[in-house]
Amino acid sequence: MSTIKDVAKLANVSIGTVSRFINGYKIKQENSLRIEEAIEQLNFKSNPMARGLRTNKTLTIGVLIPRITDVFCTQVIEGIEEILNPLNYGIVICSANDNLEQQTEKLSYLREKFVDGIIVMPVTSSEFEADEIVNRGIPIVLVDRLVKGYEFDAVICDNVNGAYSAVEMIINKGHRKIAVIGGPEEIFTAQERLTGYLRALNDYNIEVKEEYILHSPYTKNGGIQAINQLLDLEDPPTAIFTTNYPITVNSMKVLMERNLVMGEAISLCGYDQTELFQMFNPPVSVVVQPSREIGIHAAEILLKRMSDDQSRFPHIQRLKTQLIETESVKSMI
Amino acid sequence: MSTIKDVAKLANVSIGTVSRFINGYKIKQENSLRIEEAIEQLNFKSNPMARGLRTNKTLTIGVLIPRITDVFCTQVIEGIEEILNPLNYGIVICSANDNLEQQTEKLSYLREKFVDGIIVMPVTSSEFEADEIVNRGIPIVLVDRLVKGYEFDAVICDNVNGAYSAVEMIINKGHRKIAVIGGPEEIFTAQERLTGYLRALNDYNIEVKEEYILHSPYTKNGGIQAINQLLDLEDPPTAIFTTNYPITVNSMKVLMERNLVMGEAISLCGYDQTELFQMFNPPVSVVVQPSREIGIHAAEILLKRMSDDQSRFPHIQRLKTQLIETESVKSMI
Repeated sequence: MSTIKDVAKLANVSIGTVSRFINGYKIKQENSLRIEEAIEQLNFKSNPMARGLRTNKTLTIGVLIPRITDVFCTQVIEGIEEILNPLNYGIVICSANDNLEQQTEKLSYLREKFVDGIIVMPVTSSEFEADEIVNRGIPIVLVDRLVKGYEFDAVICDNVNGAYSAVEMIINKGHRKIAVIGGPEEIFTAQERLTGYLRALNDYNIEVKEEYILHSPYTKNGGIQAINQLLDLEDPPTAIFTTNYPITVNSMKVLMERNLVMGEAISLCGYDQTELFQMFNPPVSVVVQPSREIGIHAAEILLKRMSDDQSRFPHIQRLKTQLIETESVKSMI
Repeated sequence: MSTIKDVAKLANVSIGTVSRFINGYKIKQENSLRIEEAIEQLNFKSNPMARGLRTNKTLTIGVLIPRITDVFCTQVIEGIEEILNPLNYGIVICSANDNLEQQTEKLSYLREKFVDGIIVMPVTSSEFEADEIVNRGIPIVLVDRLVKGYEFDAVICDNVNGAYSAVEMIINKGHRKIAVIGGPEEIFTAQERLTGYLRALNDYNIEVKEEYILHSPYTKNGGIQAINQLLDLEDPPTAIFTTNYPITVNSMKVLMERNLVMGEAISLCGYDQTELFQMFNPPVSVVVQPSREIGIHAAEILLKRMSDDQSRFPHIQRLKTQLIETESVKSMI
């Protein structure tokens, strides 16, 4: 088995030059060509692990998300890739499958693979176990959700104002019976969105009715039970604010099954954008999170930390949401 | 820095027991509790790389897909996770971003991380570089697309019959001017779907018109130019068969922009299912690939190979597609 020394000798360069080449630094083109040839001729395999131990860099970033089929998550990843791919970082994606145990396992998996940094969208805000990662000095940037018990850099959305703007728009269209299907109380973004809902009702002097406030898991089938419960009320709401993507889609499905035309029989404003939502008739009103931008900013903060710039830690970056207003919320005026 | 010996001593078990514990084998619960405590107390960090070298197992599977925002890809991954998660495999996902160079880089990244096996959906069928992986004996299972120059296990769909059934349905509804927006000629599935289209026209004695056969990249913005070109023909088609998810979505968008009602002004049958397609009015006719099942079967074949069962190699498993027939294809009869 050939070594880095053999490569250096054959390529007629120093071991340091080969090392720099292997670790992805720019070197003179003629040298890199000779090294490439030597590596091929000797069938030399650099051991990325040993490499990581030697240089303390693996040029690998771990990304941990709650669920791989969630459009919000994959759009965030696209933003991350946009920044890190051109810098030759390998990006390794793991899914926690909405499961805290899997989240802990996969975090320790990423830690053991000695990634240079980790971007995490936590499953919930309450349970998060990252002592080992912190102790090793591997930077973590959170996206979308903060967690209790740790200080991390984070890129999140202004959920309070996002939800507020949606509910305010519904109020301005003349609705007074406005329900919300929120997420689990232990999820940070869910708390914030509920706060936005309550604040809007309060600002406009609308009575808060307990029966109009439901919680649903932020999982694949979220919202189905809740929307049925709302529609079955003796005094049902005229408008419903659904606070994430699966709840929005599942609510739309239930309305269709019950032959309730969105924007006529019942008004709906959702959360998170997919290219298809605006192709419906009527298009769906939604609070849009700048998912791609979240990924871009998270990658940029991580790059800063990985280059040992610890200024302004923890940096909590809040991005504004955008409201798409359509006829899925009926004007009652 | 503490070693495995220190852990064994403190936990009062043999080094072999600690090793078995670290490598994920079942050991007596009392032992595993003592080892866990010892590991925590000593802050012992097992080196997964050394572990991999010692046992030849990393309990990690690499999954390489063309694009993370493609619903087909993420549904396949869900199927893979369904099988491998309960077995405690770490699943590492990489995206090639529709780029051959990135595909090669990420394959060698996965190889260098010494994964136990790799599931790949190749970017194209023509260029694929996996000699190193084959030489190291790391099993590869392909999904959706075969590649030239290699024999690999694969789970693919019956694309010829999938496309045939779609075009046959369109013909049976009385259409004769049927266009297809196919994929790039170098992609295996695209070739097969075009074959299905041609075979159906041929079986039903319908003249093949060159101007009705367009190719589009299988990328995010695929299909936009092609559908506009078809609609601008002097003698435009009455029905269009779009052969993957982005082409279908983008074609629907263009129709809407041009105020052409799907199923009335123009008929459309697409490929690949999303939960939203059947919520449109009219719902979208599509050829549905059993994406989750593809992932499940690919994971099962990979498990077999990783346990050194080389029987029936290469095992090419073909799954049937399903046709969803809706009013997005107008009846002309």
